[in-house]
Amino acid sequence: MRTYALIIALLSVYGIPLLLCAQQQKDKEKAAPISGQAVAQYCHVVPLPQEMRIGTGKFRLVSTATICVSGNGHTRIYGGASRFLRNLSDRTGLNFMIEGYVTPQDTIRSSPIQIFCRRAGKVVLGEDESYTLTITPQQIVLSAETDIGALRGLATLLQLVDSDAEGYFVPALTIYDKPRFAWRGLLLDVARHFFSADVVKKQLDLLEFVKANVLHLHLTDDQGFRIESKTYPKLHELGSDGQYYSQATVREIIQYADERGIRIVPEFDLPGHSTSWYIGYPEFSSGTGATFGGPYRIDRRWGRGSPVMNPIKEEVYQFLDVFFKEMSELFPDEYMHIGGDENNGEQWATNPDIQAFMRQNNLPTKAALQNYFNKRLLAILTKHGKKMMGWDEIFVEGVPKTVMIQSWQGREALYRAARQGYATILSNGYYLDLHEPTDRHYLNDPVPDSVKLSAEEKAMIVGGEACMWSEYINAANVDSRIWPRMAAIAERLWSSASVRDVDDMYRRLEHCSAWLEQLGSTHETNVAMMLRRLTGVHHDIQPLKTFVDVLETVKEYKRGQLLKFTYTTFYPLTGIADVARPDARVARNFRAQTAKYLTLLKKLTDAQKAIKGTTLAAADSSTYETLVATREFMLTWLRLWKSNHERLLPIIRANPRLADIEEHSLSLSLVAQLGIEAIDRLERGVIITPQWRYVAGIILERAKQPRAQTDIMIIPAIEQLVKATDGYK
Amino acid sequence: MRTYALIIALLSVYGIPLLLCAQQQKDKEKAAPISGQAVAQYCHVVPLPQEMRIGTGKFRLVSTATICVSGNGHTRIYGGASRFLRNLSDRTGLNFMIEGYVTPQDTIRSSPIQIFCRRAGKVVLGEDESYTLTITPQQIVLSAETDIGALRGLATLLQLVDSDAEGYFVPALTIYDKPRFAWRGLLLDVARHFFSADVVKKQLDLLEFVKANVLHLHLTDDQGFRIESKTYPKLHELGSDGQYYSQATVREIIQYADERGIRIVPEFDLPGHSTSWYIGYPEFSSGTGATFGGPYRIDRRWGRGSPVMNPIKEEVYQFLDVFFKEMSELFPDEYMHIGGDENNGEQWATNPDIQAFMRQNNLPTKAALQNYFNKRLLAILTKHGKKMMGWDEIFVEGVPKTVMIQSWQGREALYRAARQGYATILSNGYYLDLHEPTDRHYLNDPVPDSVKLSAEEKAMIVGGEACMWSEYINAANVDSRIWPRMAAIAERLWSSASVRDVDDMYRRLEHCSAWLEQLGSTHETNVAMMLRRLTGVHHDIQPLKTFVDVLETVKEYKRGQLLKFTYTTFYPLTGIADVARPDARVARNFRAQTAKYLTLLKKLTDAQKAIKGTTLAAADSSTYETLVATREFMLTWLRLWKSNHERLLPIIRANPRLADIEEHSLSLSLVAQLGIEAIDRLERGVIITPQWRYVAGIILERAKQPRAQTDIMIIPAIEQLVKATDGYK
Repeated sequence: MRTYALIIALLSVYGIPLLLCAQQQKDKEKAAPISGQAVAQYCHVVPLPQEMRIGTGKFRLVSTATICVSGNGHTRIYGGASRFLRNLSDRTGLNFMIEGYVTPQDTIRSSPIQIFCRRAGKVVLGEDESYTLTITPQQIVLSAETDIGALRGLATLLQLVDSDAEGYFVPALTIYDKPRFAWRGLLLDVARHFFSADVVKKQLDLLEFVKANVLHLHLTDDQGFRIESKTYPKLHELGSDGQYYSQATVREIIQYADERGIRIVPEFDLPGHSTSWYIGYPEFSSGTGATFGGPYRIDRRWGRGSPVMNPIKEEVYQFLDVFFKEMSELFPDEYMHIGGDENNGEQWATNPDIQAFMRQNNLPTKAALQNYFNKRLLAILTKHGKKMMGWDEIFVEGVPKTVMIQSWQGREALYRAARQGYATILSNGYYLDLHEPTDRHYLNDPVPDSVKLSAEEKAMIVGGEACMWSEYINAANVDSRIWPRMAAIAERLWSSASVRDVDDMYRRLEHCSAWLEQLGSTHETNVAMMLRRLTGVHHDIQPLKTFVDVLETVKEYKRGQLLKFTYTTFYPLTGIADVARPDARVARNFRAQTAKYLTLLKKLTDAQKAIKGTTLAAADSSTYETLVATREFMLTWLRLWKSNHERLLPIIRANPRLADIEEHSLSLSLVAQLGIEAIDRLERGVIITPQWRYVAGIILERAKQPRAQTDIMIIPAIEQLVKATDGYK
Repeated sequence: MRTYALIIALLSVYGIPLLLCAQQQKDKEKAAPISGQAVAQYCHVVPLPQEMRIGTGKFRLVSTATICVSGNGHTRIYGGASRFLRNLSDRTGLNFMIEGYVTPQDTIRSSPIQIFCRRAGKVVLGEDESYTLTITPQQIVLSAETDIGALRGLATLLQLVDSDAEGYFVPALTIYDKPRFAWRGLLLDVARHFFSADVVKKQLDLLEFVKANVLHLHLTDDQGFRIESKTYPKLHELGSDGQYYSQATVREIIQYADERGIRIVPEFDLPGHSTSWYIGYPEFSSGTGATFGGPYRIDRRWGRGSPVMNPIKEEVYQFLDVFFKEMSELFPDEYMHIGGDENNGEQWATNPDIQAFMRQNNLPTKAALQNYFNKRLLAILTKHGKKMMGWDEIFVEGVPKTVMIQSWQGREALYRAARQGYATILSNGYYLDLHEPTDRHYLNDPVPDSVKLSAEEKAMIVGGEACMWSEYINAANVDSRIWPRMAAIAERLWSSASVRDVDDMYRRLEHCSAWLEQLGSTHETNVAMMLRRLTGVHHDIQPLKTFVDVLETVKEYKRGQLLKFTYTTFYPLTGIADVARPDARVARNFRAQTAKYLTLLKKLTDAQKAIKGTTLAAADSSTYETLVATREFMLTWLRLWKSNHERLLPIIRANPRLADIEEHSLSLSLVAQLGIEAIDRLERGVIITPQWRYVAGIILERAKQPRAQTDIMIIPAIEQLVKATDGYK
């Protein structure tokens, strides 16, 4: 009802009779809200709004359109409205007559686009982000409790833009929208590979577009200390190879995020994952001897070293007090993330002083000692006005309830924290670096219906965060790892739990993906660039693209295993595994069509069996037509893949670094041939020989082995086809 | 001979007998250096080195390769060597075993890649940038007087990388190289549209690759004041919409440039082009009245306003003294560019105090008054240790000889300055915003053989600068306007005057372009992105790409005229004219093939006339074969263009903003049809009817009119074909 109060307030401002409003209220009661799947066909918006009513007619976009902002919103709404106009202009080519920016001076009451914010929003956890969007052929009215809600509404409005023969328009409709979870984040690891401020700001633009509201920066790790410290300058000077954010840059990023209603949550990973701290300050490590286990060097590999902060030295806490005071002043967010993960405890176990301290203080385990350290750190953070946040590992017996737990280990850890009354967010299942398909992340609900939690316990789960760890990414391919999958995660965290239609998500994601590209994401463009680098100037990229389009980088942590962990920070990220994108669309579509084909064929075969002596076509002609269309779709692709090897081979031969895909390309051609043969046998009912089956088996077995750190993603479909021939023994 | 001295020095360091060196010296005397065109076939390097000798064998690149730096170079060579390794790794996929950066500790004398710098280079005008590169199957030796020369050598080395069946290699050869001109620059206008530090740094990477050594930043203009001033903060606070470089960022950019041996030359355009200064400080303008002709606002258009600095107020010079002191401390380069162009003098003419001052001080003209202003400014710059630089307009009677003139108006202005003993650089003919073809810039020699200047006068012409004015560019298409054309200009300024083979330049430019893309330029990638934005998600971009590939944005200042100068800073730069690239390659090739075809046809027709009663084919069979191949090439394209309209039309209909290309697309199809018909008539000797000729004429006339601010660049070829049918009246 609050949104209605807003509309009423707004309408009164413009002197529009409340009668009209009452009428609208009545309309609302009459027409049942269209939601979930039913709404989908009308719009491409990601995340799908909570509630949506389709109106009549279209609001036409013209270059004379102006925007009027009223109410008491924060000034960030003017920047938001200006960006909205620029994006609209870029998309439609409309040269809006507003020459500069939308400003408080633009108060034309007759403006066709009206934005009303009741109060100034704060970029804090739990701020009201709801909005109401009412589009009629005459006017667009966006009203919200806060300017941040209004920004969310502008993101929706941009995605509603459509066109017909007459020009660009937005359809008449009404949307009532608000987020399901308050914490909708992305973690970007800037330690393993560093990303410039421009790359970070671009993520903020893209996050705003999908209504995410947290960018969590993993600022420090064994491989780098990525932020300037004025109190302890050797941290960034010696720990970063010069690749760090100055405090001025950090302020710029925070400001940029604030303008988009996005929180910046900094992470300083402690007591482990902290090699880069000790290059300048070895005395804070738990190493022993004159050099405290050093000299330390920036780690160029992963998971080798185990330096950990010394929890028994008072100097360490004095240092942390000064350092976190500085960082607390720099970062305005109420949360300070202290990491806390994966401390292997080796340096603690081998330091006699620490062992003695543990005995004296009744701290029998590594976890107990880490908890002691965390409690000391908590006191420091509290003193500087911050709430502490950390990974699962910090959640041990006796941790104060004010601590926020980020769960990477699994749902059980998440629910355990929630049951014990800790605020918590889910990251398990949202690891973008593991190359999982979009639907897997999408269906990963932090609070599924099935979960056994009370309402109060459920309320402790405040959201989720996708994690973009950066061992294998750089500026050239970071976007293709985050986007568009992040948009699906953002929808999971914003939209209703009932919005779970995977096909519709994929349909809308294509539109969203195009918008993301227009807003600066290079997830699509850089593929061509990377392919050109691999083929060289004398070759068309198409054969390599055809091949790469059915590949995905190996899942989970397999890439490191395949490389035998010899890779370093400088491993060239320019190979096939770096070009291949998660959730390869061509392969996904082919798998879906194959499943459909086999279902249709089963249905037809059953029908044929029922009518003795008939053909498949005669058994059920309409189903047969669909089968033929599906089969032809499949055969078109299979023939392309079958013949692709001979086109790709000269390119492989001309580029030594492509040598490792030769067998894979040959395999693709062979499994495509298998697919064609299987379809032929299935439909013609040819008897399968043991020889064919045997050869098919060994071809598939070899094709399934990863090459160039990638998998061929049509193989499951080919296996299904081959398996289906079992009936023709 | 100096380079030889270096090699001898280097060889002595490594204890290699001087005998071998003497042998090398003898070899040099024996083998004439291969240069110019002859070298071209061996290499793709841009700019082409001064002198090059081809050796025997190949130096194989392997991941165990290490680099050893010796001598007394500036530490920037370590960064350069590290970047070289990373770029090599990205290109070849070789995972070099050097885990971090090349450092002074890497002193392995047996390293296969040896870099020797005799002394530390300074990033100043005239620094020695020569280098010698000696590649044998065993070793790469790069030696240079300075580390900056060594950086230039690394750029060459990177471009020499090639591959064969065995892997990656560089061919054995020796290069002696040095620049022809000392000033090889790019002006980037960051005032009309602002570019982030990342975009600027990327230009520095690309400039280093083509051995350019100056980035001139046009920091202020009517449309924006793009740099933080701590002494007069209202300059950037009120004059930039928040789009400016902080001084910390400027220092980062200067540092980044220094690491690449590139000078940053700042420009503060005065006394005109300065509206943005007066928003915060109207009292420094020449306006009259209580508000000094203000209040001033950031200009969103071009060439409208005419505010100009007040040259008669002592407060102005006090201000300039403080301001330029601040800027002189910030920018280390010896030159400070004060603009000086296009002061229309309106504010001076209408200010009675200024008019009185002119009378009192015997300053009869606008030019005289501006010269008075410049002299005062010169004294200020001199006081702060800077040399003054400006556009042609500052070059008036009595200007001190220490001033550097940048010539935009034309060659005569350039030569006049040189004759009078002023150091000067050429920019006329290098304006990248005018959409001229590459060869035109390429053949624009600052000191052509024909010029009547003495050796001393020629020496005053110290180089040239390409200008990238930014009225119509933003981050998405700035690269496609600068690159790869800038590489050809860089070659003009580095390589010998005799290197003028346009075909070979274009051949090498394709390789260079691929490298530029790998180093971050988006000149190729963003085309696809921009086409996708125009076609929308449901359409293949190919038909639009086929169309755009023969278009160029209208030349010179025609775009503004077509838009009737109603466009603003916020005009959406996402249309066809923004996607189309200068020097459209497909059209250029087609024009070349058409010219070739007509020459061949003429030759054959003449031969046919000589032998009565024979056919074209029989008249000269080998020429005829070439004619057929050329004709088939042409017909393939013509048929594609002819049929493209029907494929493009549905895309145009689905995207209202493409409405303005419909007639152009139709024209392309019609002129392609004309080309097919003309070829048919030419070869079959069909009589041309007046009707056909008339219709051809009006089709071409319409097709030549710009649409969507673009021209169809195959029309000259079609006109030639149609004109050739004149013989068949």
